[in-house]
Amino acid sequence: MKKVVTLGEIMLRLIPPRFERFVQAKSFDVIYGGGEANVAVSLANYGLDSYYVTKLPENEIGQAAINELRKYGVNTDYISRGGERIGIYFSETGASMRPSKVVYDRAHSSISDAEIDDFDFDAIFKDANWFHFSGITPALGTKAALLTEAALQSAKKHGVTVSVDLNYRKNLWTPEEAQKTMTKLMQYVDVCIGNEEDAHLTLGFKPGSTNVTSGDLELAGYEHIFKDMMDKFGFKYVISSLRKSYSASDNGWSACGYDGNNFYHTKDYDIRIVDRVGGGDSFASGVIYGLLNDKTFEDSLEFGVAASALKHTIHGDFNMVTVKEVDTLVAGDSSGRVQR
Amino acid sequence: MKKVVTLGEIMLRLIPPRFERFVQAKSFDVIYGGGEANVAVSLANYGLDSYYVTKLPENEIGQAAINELRKYGVNTDYISRGGERIGIYFSETGASMRPSKVVYDRAHSSISDAEIDDFDFDAIFKDANWFHFSGITPALGTKAALLTEAALQSAKKHGVTVSVDLNYRKNLWTPEEAQKTMTKLMQYVDVCIGNEEDAHLTLGFKPGSTNVTSGDLELAGYEHIFKDMMDKFGFKYVISSLRKSYSASDNGWSACGYDGNNFYHTKDYDIRIVDRVGGGDSFASGVIYGLLNDKTFEDSLEFGVAASALKHTIHGDFNMVTVKEVDTLVAGDSSGRVQR
Amino acid sequence: MKKVVTLGEIMLRLIPPRFERFVQAKSFDVIYGGGEANVAVSLANYGLDSYYVTKLPENEIGQAAINELRKYGVNTDYISRGGERIGIYFSETGASMRPSKVVYDRAHSSISDAEIDDFDFDAIFKDANWFHFSGITPALGTKAALLTEAALQSAKKHGVTVSVDLNYRKNLWTPEEAQKTMTKLMQYVDVCIGNEEDAHLTLGFKPGSTNVTSGDLELAGYEHIFKDMMDKFGFKYVISSLRKSYSASDNGWSACGYDGNNFYHTKDYDIRIVDRVGGGDSFASGVIYGLLNDKTFEDSLEFGVAASALKHTIHGDFNMVTVKEVDTLVAGDSSGRVQR
Amino acid sequence: MKKVVTLGEIMLRLIPPRFERFVQAKSFDVIYGGGEANVAVSLANYGLDSYYVTKLPENEIGQAAINELRKYGVNTDYISRGGERIGIYFSETGASMRPSKVVYDRAHSSISDAEIDDFDFDAIFKDANWFHFSGITPALGTKAALLTEAALQSAKKHGVTVSVDLNYRKNLWTPEEAQKTMTKLMQYVDVCIGNEEDAHLTLGFKPGSTNVTSGDLELAGYEHIFKDMMDKFGFKYVISSLRKSYSASDNGWSACGYDGNNFYHTKDYDIRIVDRVGGGDSFASGVIYGLLNDKTFEDSLEFGVAASALKHTIHGDFNMVTVKEVDTLVAGDSSGRVQR
Amino acid sequence: MKKVVTLGEIMLRLIPPRFERFVQAKSFDVIYGGGEANVAVSLANYGLDSYYVTKLPENEIGQAAINELRKYGVNTDYISRGGERIGIYFSETGASMRPSKVVYDRAHSSISDAEIDDFDFDAIFKDANWFHFSGITPALGTKAALLTEAALQSAKKHGVTVSVDLNYRKNLWTPEEAQKTMTKLMQYVDVCIGNEEDAHLTLGFKPGSTNVTSGDLELAGYEHIFKDMMDKFGFKYVISSLRKSYSASDNGWSACGYDGNNFYHTKDYDIRIVDRVGGGDSFASGVIYGLLNDKTFEDSLEFGVAASALKHTIHGDFNMVTVKEVDTLVAGDSSGRVQR
Amino acid sequence: MKKVVTLGEIMLRLIPPRFERFVQAKSFDVIYGGGEANVAVSLANYGLDSYYVTKLPENEIGQAAINELRKYGVNTDYISRGGERIGIYFSETGASMRPSKVVYDRAHSSISDAEIDDFDFDAIFKDANWFHFSGITPALGTKAALLTEAALQSAKKHGVTVSVDLNYRKNLWTPEEAQKTMTKLMQYVDVCIGNEEDAHLTLGFKPGSTNVTSGDLELAGYEHIFKDMMDKFGFKYVISSLRKSYSASDNGWSACGYDGNNFYHTKDYDIRIVDRVGGGDSFASGVIYGLLNDKTFEDSLEFGVAASALKHTIHGDFNMVTVKEVDTLVAGDSSGRVQR
Repeated sequence: MKKVVTLGEIMLRLIPPRFERFVQAKSFDVIYGGGEANVAVSLANYGLDSYYVTKLPENEIGQAAINELRKYGVNTDYISRGGERIGIYFSETGASMRPSKVVYDRAHSSISDAEIDDFDFDAIFKDANWFHFSGITPALGTKAALLTEAALQSAKKHGVTVSVDLNYRKNLWTPEEAQKTMTKLMQYVDVCIGNEEDAHLTLGFKPGSTNVTSGDLELAGYEHIFKDMMDKFGFKYVISSLRKSYSASDNGWSACGYDGNNFYHTKDYDIRIVDRVGGGDSFASGVIYGLLNDKTFEDSLEFGVAASALKHTIHGDFNMVTVKEVDTLVAGDSSGRVQR
Repeated sequence: MKKVVTLGEIMLRLIPPRFERFVQAKSFDVIYGGGEANVAVSLANYGLDSYYVTKLPENEIGQAAINELRKYGVNTDYISRGGERIGIYFSETGASMRPSKVVYDRAHSSISDAEIDDFDFDAIFKDANWFHFSGITPALGTKAALLTEAALQSAKKHGVTVSVDLNYRKNLWTPEEAQKTMTKLMQYVDVCIGNEEDAHLTLGFKPGSTNVTSGDLELAGYEHIFKDMMDKFGFKYVISSLRKSYSASDNGWSACGYDGNNFYHTKDYDIRIVDRVGGGDSFASGVIYGLLNDKTFEDSLEFGVAASALKHTIHGDFNMVTVKEVDTLVAGDSSGRVQR
Repeated sequence: MKKVVTLGEIMLRLIPPRFERFVQAKSFDVIYGGGEANVAVSLANYGLDSYYVTKLPENEIGQAAINELRKYGVNTDYISRGGERIGIYFSETGASMRPSKVVYDRAHSSISDAEIDDFDFDAIFKDANWFHFSGITPALGTKAALLTEAALQSAKKHGVTVSVDLNYRKNLWTPEEAQKTMTKLMQYVDVCIGNEEDAHLTLGFKPGSTNVTSGDLELAGYEHIFKDMMDKFGFKYVISSLRKSYSASDNGWSACGYDGNNFYHTKDYDIRIVDRVGGGDSFASGVIYGLLNDKTFEDSLEFGVAASALKHTIHGDFNMVTVKEVDTLVAGDSSGRVQR
Repeated sequence: MKKVVTLGEIMLRLIPPRFERFVQAKSFDVIYGGGEANVAVSLANYGLDSYYVTKLPENEIGQAAINELRKYGVNTDYISRGGERIGIYFSETGASMRPSKVVYDRAHSSISDAEIDDFDFDAIFKDANWFHFSGITPALGTKAALLTEAALQSAKKHGVTVSVDLNYRKNLWTPEEAQKTMTKLMQYVDVCIGNEEDAHLTLGFKPGSTNVTSGDLELAGYEHIFKDMMDKFGFKYVISSLRKSYSASDNGWSACGYDGNNFYHTKDYDIRIVDRVGGGDSFASGVIYGLLNDKTFEDSLEFGVAASALKHTIHGDFNMVTVKEVDTLVAGDSSGRVQR
Repeated sequence: MKKVVTLGEIMLRLIPPRFERFVQAKSFDVIYGGGEANVAVSLANYGLDSYYVTKLPENEIGQAAINELRKYGVNTDYISRGGERIGIYFSETGASMRPSKVVYDRAHSSISDAEIDDFDFDAIFKDANWFHFSGITPALGTKAALLTEAALQSAKKHGVTVSVDLNYRKNLWTPEEAQKTMTKLMQYVDVCIGNEEDAHLTLGFKPGSTNVTSGDLELAGYEHIFKDMMDKFGFKYVISSLRKSYSASDNGWSACGYDGNNFYHTKDYDIRIVDRVGGGDSFASGVIYGLLNDKTFEDSLEFGVAASALKHTIHGDFNMVTVKEVDTLVAGDSSGRVQR
Repeated sequence: MKKVVTLGEIMLRLIPPRFERFVQAKSFDVIYGGGEANVAVSLANYGLDSYYVTKLPENEIGQAAINELRKYGVNTDYISRGGERIGIYFSETGASMRPSKVVYDRAHSSISDAEIDDFDFDAIFKDANWFHFSGITPALGTKAALLTEAALQSAKKHGVTVSVDLNYRKNLWTPEEAQKTMTKLMQYVDVCIGNEEDAHLTLGFKPGSTNVTSGDLELAGYEHIFKDMMDKFGFKYVISSLRKSYSASDNGWSACGYDGNNFYHTKDYDIRIVDRVGGGDSFASGVIYGLLNDKTFEDSLEFGVAASALKHTIHGDFNMVTVKEVDTLVAGDSSGRVQR
């Protein structure tokens, strides 16, 4: 069983039920999730030995987040406890032309203020095969950026493959700040995941004419940027999911990737959305699973995009699907016929 | 801040949850709403000084209706208390080819039996800029028709602009009764809102060949009728929303209007419906907001139709959107991408 | 009022709410349903004198199943009490490309172990006009197959018209077992309902090239098989619903039938699905209602397919629609406009 | 199986969940109940052939009320359909020193305006053994009082035993009106149920010094009044439940009765209340069951008070207990130990 | 109508439903509340002109808090918008010997960082009759303490009566910090509310032998301390509620007060608790209402303690009772009999 | 960290919400629990290295049970997958004099048919300190009894301390069967937990005059039996919880135990019950925790009884309390005051 480590922030997500707006809500659905935590859960679901590393406050809400991770089989032994609070975000579910809305309340979280000494990275990366992080983690603040780099250095020391999901968050930093920090971290990265917008804002690659909002895709533009990124940072693979936002209820979904030789574009899925949060993370997880299990790059992309298409039909951040369920969709059965 | 007054009936709406049929329901969702109340809430949301006038029984259910209005910033100081009961309607949410179903239990409501003396119209319309009512209010009974006329006379006396939403309700009166009453009230009206069916049934204008059910639209027919209506009653604007009923789940939505010179047809929206009740009211509110804020007639129509498109994605009668959210949709972003 | 009898298994169906996966569920929605019970409820809804025959354990869960049937007007006087347990199945609601999933826990149910002596078939079929069963009932086990045959013999003795819904269930028996048992029972059947797959697996008719999953339909293939079936078993009518599985959320739905002279294909409906369980049963019920009320075969098919289109929009197995509601859809109004 | 008939009003009861006040409620729990309907359900639960007679509007809400009755095995064949509406009441659940609160909206209900011709009393009372009604039914209005008398005359003609629950409702009539109507109806009554307050307000018997609020009981006063009532009206039995209102959460509960010879006081129960609505009806049902099944008068009282103690622990108006469950409590086991 | 102003922090309170522990919760009930906000709502309920002053972030969660206040009739015109976040606390409902548990996440809230210039105190206190604050507000931080003092100075300048609820919070400051700040603020206070523990920790008065946990009360000790407090600070009234904590489910509840001449102890209530949060605030509100409406001090205490006894039976922080309901309880009816 | 192993059956428990009876339930709350699983969770909560051993079917419901155990930190590595089904029981929550009711549907469960070879007991008991089982496990059937004995033999081989909770279940076996099997297993047991009724029915010890239902306790009788049991089987400790069943809502709760020298009776708790299922298991867990952590026998009993008192206030089978929370109650604070 391959060992995978992810490091980042898990937040308490509070969701008004049934398409309600915030002012209508008399209760919030409670979800614990966050980019790297979502990846850890997906990979545990697929049967890998999955470790999630973060820092959480020493209260019952921090414990509840840990219990949710344990429920899905993630190893939480290296989660540090202490600090001020768990990050929170409020997430209103959109419909049709009304967009989903996120109100963040994540400042001062325990992980954003964590010290490198809170973690024993040698123990964490011992015998590990893969390390995944996202651009959100270093964006949490100076300490978090240093923590990320320390983790990356340790990972490399232990010969661990590293993937990043660029994931630019405009509420956390400016493009200038992002580029300054992220450019430095790219030296540790083997597999880079991120769309044109992320590549532009966090790494400074000038986008083509892709209009992300309208969903028009310029695959040629992607191929061009991917090559530039590989040239500059020596990535082994560069990858992006491709979302066409028809509305808050319906999206098109595919992915593309470049392995230094070929540029691939996966099958395209039209999705009726239940919950799109965590969609990108489930894609990253699928690709990581594929690559760790010696699928070809192309097959890994197809596995990732099918897995994340399924994620969009599941409430919450975590992608609760099995390898078999993803394989069935990859094999072409998207009929939704009842499985008895 | 412009002052707007609306007068009408607010009802208790009882809704089986989750597409259940009435016989399946073990609980009803509780909504308080009604044409003019919905307009008052929308306009308060947009920042206007919004007054709602009605009569409600002196019990806790009447109070609960008032509290819902206050919650959204509507001034309820002129709501009279007393009478027999609050009107009730039961509303089953349809899906696909199964239509939504409404069972009315609204007879004997406090507002339908209210006296003119229950209200101090001079105080109500002092410094007011706009008065809105619907064809439902005079349809509630003889007393309510007299009350409506008294309000209109006072509004005119105070130089207030008046709009009507014709809104024919076949359970409340016959076309003959409607025409007899409504024709008389049109003299006070500046802005007339109503589709071809309403124009036919409440004002006697012979419809063209528009088939309302199938959703086919004959804009030419609308232009013709609007000109006739303006000729007869001297309206400043005649307006209609245009609904294409593909199914209970999906509708097309646009609007048209005539200002004496030009006939406009707005952008057309395809909507995945959450709750279509209050759709027409949110359209009226949007147009009123536009006209009160010196938008052009055409821009007011676009604002109204975008606002009401958003309304269809919100549970309940009230349209809980901000001016900024409507403006974003008017500006063309219907992608539903997450707003962080 | 025509008397109809159905015999089979009613199960406790446990459903995670709101598209949740099984591991996410903190509560299950409770539905009692089963092929023949669903037919009994539909026919009671349509005003027929509807009897449902089964065996249920003598505990409160068995009683709850009976109460649900009584609620919808089904006569439960001939339900035997005793045996070990009520069959259970867990049913996860799919969405988009994620299929619905059923986990069965139905072995050892009271009806699967029932004795012929548990029922007074002479009383049950006295003055009855129609008897309906499905291929699921004899598949429950040897005893259940004998019980089914005893019922069929009694029905025939009393001159009752018999319909079957072939309904092959791979978890209950092999095609070989099915064919051995079902072929023998066909001698009692007047109206045979079942799609190509059922005809193949339970009766051994070789299918054409229809790809059930993709939803492609080969009506010609159906006509061919229907004629063969009629030749072999002397059915009066052979009928099938035709489902196009676009996804778990959207299906196409129509039906075809052969009356010995003509082959009919009904109108085609595109359905946004609320709950597809019981869809086939509601189709059978509609056809039975039509034939019992002297509609033409073609009109009966149209009634059946419209009724079952509506069923897909209703939560639970039972089709809670009136004759009038079905007639409205048959007459062409699928606009979903609010019925006030 | 003995046949029992009850006649009265069944209402839609709307309940804010979880001790919420009306202004807090975002949903209402839906219960259908009413004095005589509650008795009909209890007696059906006990295995009697129970008929409930009323008039309900011809809409889905009326149908839902019927379905609830059918669910519990009540025969609804003689329920007339038509009229204006179903009576509604809103019921807030109290706790501790905060009393439960009821807001009535029951005027203009179908049963209050029903005609005698709406019912075939000869068919209804054919072979009946018992007829039960309450003082609420004639209080609904002049027509309802005439209807009640017509039913009573028919019952007597068919030799049916008659019981009444006096049940004074101050919102429906004055003591003077009550006494005028009820005194006349007492000639048909064999078994009279009602506490001191009812006896005073509906029949004019001067109460002793019992303080109903404080829960102090003066059994001597009851015995005195019961003898006077029997002297005046020739009842066979006079009966009352005795409630000690410690708080909205805790009540004491017992009953007393006089059979012309002896005055009995039952065991006293202390109850932690789940829902006290229907408590009196379940007591009446228990006594009727006892007398119809040849229990002694004393045993019937004990059965009634135990049954109604159990009712207080059940949500909704209907008392869903079996004879065996009541017998266990009568036999002395109030330990609440888990029944496996 | 008397004008009352309160100033403080309103928080988002998140509550696991139905006695669940935090780790079990899949949803949180949403309540907005806080000491001074609760007082403002109570006083608005009693018909006063009630103003609540705070600072809330300019996002939808801040708006939702405002909407809840408006719903209950509180004037929110002087609420400042801006700053970082709304304070949050998680509140687990205890039962029996399991205590309720609160996890605070209130640091960095908008009100804790508010500037004096965010508020126009001259406008706020113009024509005001009463100002109420609690010891929690100055405990929020240095800025909040300065803000509180500025408000107090303005209140005094406008001749407004001032009350304080001492309310020591050990998570916010030490006794030393509290005493340093609070002692200075007492010069502005007319009415001081606080139990022995508060008096000790925030003002340094040495407690007697009262054991707060066990619920034993030493009224003599209270009288002694109250006199000392009055001597030192010149209060007009010193008041305390008295809680006997039998368990998380049951409490005893009364109050005592000293007016410079007499020491009063109110009636004692035994309460079955629904939600005890806000109990103290509802007591303060009741006393303030009494004093503002020229009740005697003794009657004001009785009104306050009855009002707060009722509060314990209501879910949420706000006390949704009317003057009439409190008066009924003061008058002695705690029977909880249904109010029809 | 001490390692503890428990072996038994975990079932799916289905609970009508809010005191509903089975026939009223439209949803069931979902709990996974069972005697030994509950002990495993409690001990994991207390920080022990807790292993739960069972067999569960290879479907999603089996997985959901595992996930619940993992959530609370239980090691599930040795759970075997396969077999027919998970045992189910339906559990209706009683109130006041209405008892809770359990309907079992547990036959044919995977664990009841498990083979000894399904488990690697040498690995399971390696380095283990304690093994706990209950009398329910061998009662599941012949195979389960053999499995239990195999586990016990392996435990003894590895020098593991063994505890049993006798837990007689009349639905699973007769006293004769129980005694035949259980007597043989007692040779492996060090700590025996069980009340007089269990001792009588499973081990044949003649009870004294204790009336379990009434809650009367005869401690002398317990002491006598405990000595007899110790004499016969050589237990190190004999222990029993003592329940006084006042009603389904209120219980008295204490415990007694004998260590060969002294007989102890713990503090007595009066409990307002939220959910009493799992009460005995939480008591056993508390005692095991105490003994494993070198508390005295008396202190272990007090810890156990306090822990289980708390359990009665928590929904579900699992006792979600920390050592610190139990210690607080042991130390005497049962006031239920809010913990901030």
